[in-house]
Amino acid sequence: MLLHLSTWSEVGQFLERSKTIVIPIGSNEQHGPTGLLGTDWLCPEIIAHEAHKGGADILVGPTFNIGMAQHHLGFPGTISLRPSTFMAAIGDWVRSLAVHGFQRIYFLNGHGGNIATIEAAFSELYAEASFARRPAGFACKLRNWWDLPGVNALAQRQFPVGHGSHATPSEIAVTQWAYPDAIKSANYAPQVAGSGPIREALDFRARHPDGRMGSDPALATPEKGGELVRLAVTGLVAEVAAFGDEAPVL
Amino acid sequence: MLLHLSTWSEVGQFLERSKTIVIPIGSNEQHGPTGLLGTDWLCPEIIAHEAHKGGADILVGPTFNIGMAQHHLGFPGTISLRPSTFMAAIGDWVRSLAVHGFQRIYFLNGHGGNIATIEAAFSELYAEASFARRPAGFACKLRNWWDLPGVNALAQRQFPVGHGSHATPSEIAVTQWAYPDAIKSANYAPQVAGSGPIREALDFRARHPDGRMGSDPALATPEKGGELVRLAVTGLVAEVAAFGDEAPVL
Amino acid sequence: MLLHLSTWSEVGQFLERSKTIVIPIGSNEQHGPTGLLGTDWLCPEIIAHEAHKGGADILVGPTFNIGMAQHHLGFPGTISLRPSTFMAAIGDWVRSLAVHGFQRIYFLNGHGGNIATIEAAFSELYAEASFARRPAGFACKLRNWWDLPGVNALAQRQFPVGHGSHATPSEIAVTQWAYPDAIKSANYAPQVAGSGPIREALDFRARHPDGRMGSDPALATPEKGGELVRLAVTGLVAEVAAFGDEAPVL
Amino acid sequence: MLLHLSTWSEVGQFLERSKTIVIPIGSNEQHGPTGLLGTDWLCPEIIAHEAHKGGADILVGPTFNIGMAQHHLGFPGTISLRPSTFMAAIGDWVRSLAVHGFQRIYFLNGHGGNIATIEAAFSELYAEASFARRPAGFACKLRNWWDLPGVNALAQRQFPVGHGSHATPSEIAVTQWAYPDAIKSANYAPQVAGSGPIREALDFRARHPDGRMGSDPALATPEKGGELVRLAVTGLVAEVAAFGDEAPVL
Amino acid sequence: MLLHLSTWSEVGQFLERSKTIVIPIGSNEQHGPTGLLGTDWLCPEIIAHEAHKGGADILVGPTFNIGMAQHHLGFPGTISLRPSTFMAAIGDWVRSLAVHGFQRIYFLNGHGGNIATIEAAFSELYAEASFARRPAGFACKLRNWWDLPGVNALAQRQFPVGHGSHATPSEIAVTQWAYPDAIKSANYAPQVAGSGPIREALDFRARHPDGRMGSDPALATPEKGGELVRLAVTGLVAEVAAFGDEAPVL
Amino acid sequence: MLLHLSTWSEVGQFLERSKTIVIPIGSNEQHGPTGLLGTDWLCPEIIAHEAHKGGADILVGPTFNIGMAQHHLGFPGTISLRPSTFMAAIGDWVRSLAVHGFQRIYFLNGHGGNIATIEAAFSELYAEASFARRPAGFACKLRNWWDLPGVNALAQRQFPVGHGSHATPSEIAVTQWAYPDAIKSANYAPQVAGSGPIREALDFRARHPDGRMGSDPALATPEKGGELVRLAVTGLVAEVAAFGDEAPVL
Ligand code: NI
Ligand code: NI
Ligand code: NI
Ligand code: NI
Ligand code: NI
Ligand code: NI
Repeated sequence: MLLHLSTWSEVGQFLERSKTIVIPIGSNEQHGPTGLLGTDWLCPEIIAHEAHKGGADILVGPTFNIGMAQHHLGFPGTISLRPSTFMAAIGDWVRSLAVHGFQRIYFLNGHGGNIATIEAAFSELYAEASFARRPAGFACKLRNWWDLPGVNALAQRQFPVGHGSHATPSEIAVTQWAYPDAIKSANYAPQVAGSGPIREALDFRARHPDGRMGSDPALATPEKGGELVRLAVTGLVAEVAAFGDEAPVL
Repeated sequence: MLLHLSTWSEVGQFLERSKTIVIPIGSNEQHGPTGLLGTDWLCPEIIAHEAHKGGADILVGPTFNIGMAQHHLGFPGTISLRPSTFMAAIGDWVRSLAVHGFQRIYFLNGHGGNIATIEAAFSELYAEASFARRPAGFACKLRNWWDLPGVNALAQRQFPVGHGSHATPSEIAVTQWAYPDAIKSANYAPQVAGSGPIREALDFRARHPDGRMGSDPALATPEKGGELVRLAVTGLVAEVAAFGDEAPVL
Repeated sequence: MLLHLSTWSEVGQFLERSKTIVIPIGSNEQHGPTGLLGTDWLCPEIIAHEAHKGGADILVGPTFNIGMAQHHLGFPGTISLRPSTFMAAIGDWVRSLAVHGFQRIYFLNGHGGNIATIEAAFSELYAEASFARRPAGFACKLRNWWDLPGVNALAQRQFPVGHGSHATPSEIAVTQWAYPDAIKSANYAPQVAGSGPIREALDFRARHPDGRMGSDPALATPEKGGELVRLAVTGLVAEVAAFGDEAPVL
Repeated sequence: MLLHLSTWSEVGQFLERSKTIVIPIGSNEQHGPTGLLGTDWLCPEIIAHEAHKGGADILVGPTFNIGMAQHHLGFPGTISLRPSTFMAAIGDWVRSLAVHGFQRIYFLNGHGGNIATIEAAFSELYAEASFARRPAGFACKLRNWWDLPGVNALAQRQFPVGHGSHATPSEIAVTQWAYPDAIKSANYAPQVAGSGPIREALDFRARHPDGRMGSDPALATPEKGGELVRLAVTGLVAEVAAFGDEAPVL
Repeated sequence: MLLHLSTWSEVGQFLERSKTIVIPIGSNEQHGPTGLLGTDWLCPEIIAHEAHKGGADILVGPTFNIGMAQHHLGFPGTISLRPSTFMAAIGDWVRSLAVHGFQRIYFLNGHGGNIATIEAAFSELYAEASFARRPAGFACKLRNWWDLPGVNALAQRQFPVGHGSHATPSEIAVTQWAYPDAIKSANYAPQVAGSGPIREALDFRARHPDGRMGSDPALATPEKGGELVRLAVTGLVAEVAAFGDEAPVL
Repeated sequence: MLLHLSTWSEVGQFLERSKTIVIPIGSNEQHGPTGLLGTDWLCPEIIAHEAHKGGADILVGPTFNIGMAQHHLGFPGTISLRPSTFMAAIGDWVRSLAVHGFQRIYFLNGHGGNIATIEAAFSELYAEASFARRPAGFACKLRNWWDLPGVNALAQRQFPVGHGSHATPSEIAVTQWAYPDAIKSANYAPQVAGSGPIREALDFRARHPDGRMGSDPALATPEKGGELVRLAVTGLVAEVAAFGDEAPVL
């Protein structure tokens, strides 16, 4: 069930049988010479929507499409929130969902650079309850789609060389599978990009002139993307069900 | 051109011929017994993407899908930012775009409740320049899709009675045209909902038990939605072009 | 009754017969070659105090004299809050009044540039209640003095040409009526100023070199100001009474 | 010269001969059984305006009428900013004045409870320059009106017993002199109120049931108020002149 | 009892016999040619820990070692919080302690530049309760170590000339007594430094080239430091006991 | 060299030979039945100070002793910053150090719960530069002391069973080595504590009644602590040197 294509009363009915919601969350940022700017929010959206299409009784919320990508601001098209803004926005999403009675808020993440800030946002939310000596009433969970059971392993098998950590062939393959009309090609060198620390945007662009980090995105194919999506969907559905079934400690 | 389906170098090339970008912005909130929770962000997205599909050389950014909907929080599925969070997020979007050299940031809005906060956000951005005694380097523009030339008038002709101000047949028609598989029906009464002031969520739900304000959404049809979209697209393309051509005063 | 010239026990007694308070709110900003920097906070203060002098049993709070005027910072004497600061301050005023049991907080506004931010501030206040699933306990109302019944129409009759939107002859007439010793004169050209978008301060001053927007302030006279004040007072007293009598929905 | 009754070009002319401005700042809060809620902002306004009327070539800005009075919120009519809001607002006032070239911002204060926050606000402003390794471009000064040369000593001679620290006969005398129509009387006991620590509002009201701290406000007379005003005016004019003449160290 | 060298259950046991905690608070900032950068946080830590070593049944929390020192940022090694950050951090310390049931939070301060911001932070904390019409549940107290009974008088007797207000021989003597291996010497002139207003860092360094304000730190000796510490410890223990014994008014 | 026991001119001299500083950072929080509340800030302080004592020419700043420990607030003595406060404070520390010319800011961390927020704080700092299209001028690095080369492996060898993730025998051993007078003992069961997710404080205490997570702290000995410290010191010195020698990319 896609929240944005549902009515409020349909969501109300869903809440009678489940208190769990899945929020795809990512980033809109450069993804090398051939990767789409939307890659990091498209991937979790593709996977979560595919789970819905496949018949799972899960509720998928709107996609949180802008994340923490300050280091990519040296490349046109990147849009980033500061971590403090990102935390405030995640906070308001979660508080809104908690108003309705959602107790399990599952973020399916598509961007490594989001992880620290999302976890800090969870702590900021929990801290309200902790300082007030009361239960929070909800639990948040962050899962990167590539960390769903078996997915990383599949990607390593698919791309034993040149997977890298940004503009990876696996994430690009996922978008190729879902958006075949938007497959791009480009010449780039070296075939496998270098790596290095992540700091401010000018430093990043100087280290990674075409935006890739350790990857060879030309390895991506729509077929490999489809394999990744199917495996991720299986893991997602199982994990969301387990999260929903988790017995509260309080 | 859809930014999220483009590479950074494609956006870089676009910037060589235009400094203007269109951001669909809306809200995810209850829309009465039959309206989709995504209505307010889907409508501007539908119109802007349709302009792109129709061949206009415009750049459409990701959709800003969560806005200021605190008064709708009494209905399941509504997600709202506080105005202060909304302003911070709009600020970071605009600052990101300005980093790349965008000088004309056009927000196509789908939610009346967003207007005040978006305008306050623009002032917050401009104030940085004003306090620093320097040019801002960019101009922001807010346009509600129903205020594009002729659109309101068409909606009044289409729905002379029961248009109202929330969960209107016009906005629902637009989503019906774009998402025919998600057309909903429901019984409700009275046929045309009442109206009243907008305050906190409990007050709102007490005044508007099914979420409508002054509207009869059963009047919506996909055909009427298509008419609205076509007219809005024409207005959007013309207005974005004029905005981009505006001579800077500084 | 003027709050600042009352004791706390007098306010306590007022609260036994009414839960409504009027707050004049405006801005301190350039008003063209002849307008006073205080025009926008003086006008609502003049009208509200005149209502008190005329015998109405209303409670008028201190004047909120600095608003959102970032675009006027290119002209000496303008003092502006950023929207975020303005919202925080309005919030604390309202929270303070709510502590005492005021349930109807009526802001009589004198500055168009304040509107968006004041409404965003109201939403920020209501959102506290909405996120907490509780009633707010108070209602806020914003009214521009020129939108009081009949006032705009009178101004259009008084100044059929050259009223404009900033440094208008109507607002200057009101201050002339109240502060006859502070009537200014100046040469300026063109007789009726141009108009344009409102952005950052440097842009604004480049478009509006003497500060006027579409107005010919030389048309103002103290007599016309008196007419405007008298009409506004009537409207204010009636509207405040109606606001106070409004039945709560919760 | 009163800024709010001047035009922007008059302020521009003033800036050619002086870079100094005086801002009356106070609080709107309970002042015991007979004191006016506006006492703390009226006193500095009265003194600064009297200096202007007496012919001093000083520029007096609008009165900052709401300060830090959280501990008085247990008494109707008190309006308080949180310290963080107060600091943000003072910051924007000073930044606005600095935009115009004011280099000496003199705050004439009427409320002891404001002192800490105003000084913290100055530090927050200076810190912007300090972190940026640049000069601030302006200097701020805080002066309580009762600390102007000789004023405290006069008040001690006028009220050797029962002066106290809140709702003092000296501040009430100043408002009596300026607002003779708003002189109040009340029975209260004990004649001289007790004192104690200042904490949250409920604690404060429990310790100080009628709002006084150590004072007997019945001792106030308009004549004594006039004496205090005259002495304060002399001190203010001299101190403002000296502040303006201070040679910059940078 | 030192909190950081205790277990949570030991603190739990302490709370059964006392609700009072002592927090040493200071600043890390330049202290002239011979003073340690840590002087202002070491002094209150030394005194509070010495009280503990002497057998007093007090609970001493971790030292809050970075304060408001923006004006010293022109000298290497200074670390400062902005006042707004400082207030937020003090707030979280106090809120944390209040969660555990501490009702008397005593800050032993070592830096004059902290005073305004600490008091503003207390007001910010109390304001939460005041706006919510509830008791705060705790009381905060700020005491500069030099204001403990007799300490200032002793310092004036020890250093009748050249005590000054920053990098004073008394505070340096305290650190010499506690850290005899870190006694420094340097040539400087004039023997007694000048004084002046405190503004931004560049201004401060221009006025006070070696960092001293009115002091001759060469007068410090470890013995005099020991005398000061012993007297301060006596005062601290007595004052903390009295604070803990204070009867609540609510 | 310990910054807090140095003068500003000594730090100035250090800056002529190195732009690198080490900041021990941790948390003050419950550490099970026998662990010290200060464990997480004591460990990195112990290691960094030991490196200094061993003769390494490194500069160690004051210890940042309060971190993100909201989940431990159910246990007396825990003091936590909200993530937003923690980020603001880290930001001001780094900005202060950057003012002096430090270009390599190395945080030696002692608390796993700090990691996300510290990394978010770094991104917030870098984002200032990224949005302004300028170099940051400094690089930040976070290293947990247990992740220094070989340290985790040693701990696993020392404690093959019962190491766990909170109140671990390795961290307790480090404090036992440094503070032998503060070694605690207690009965607890089960011998090895359970584990689970980390949410708000009440949830945490319900899951972990004595505060341990997966650990058996009775395994700690001062000798094992000394081994860990010595190995960590070696790694720290090498890593700080490498960080300082890193060639800038810009
Ligand atoms: Ni990616
Ligand atoms: Ni809508
Ligand atoms: Ni106006
Ligand atoms: Ni007073
Ligand atoms: Ni000191
Ligand atoms: Ni630990």
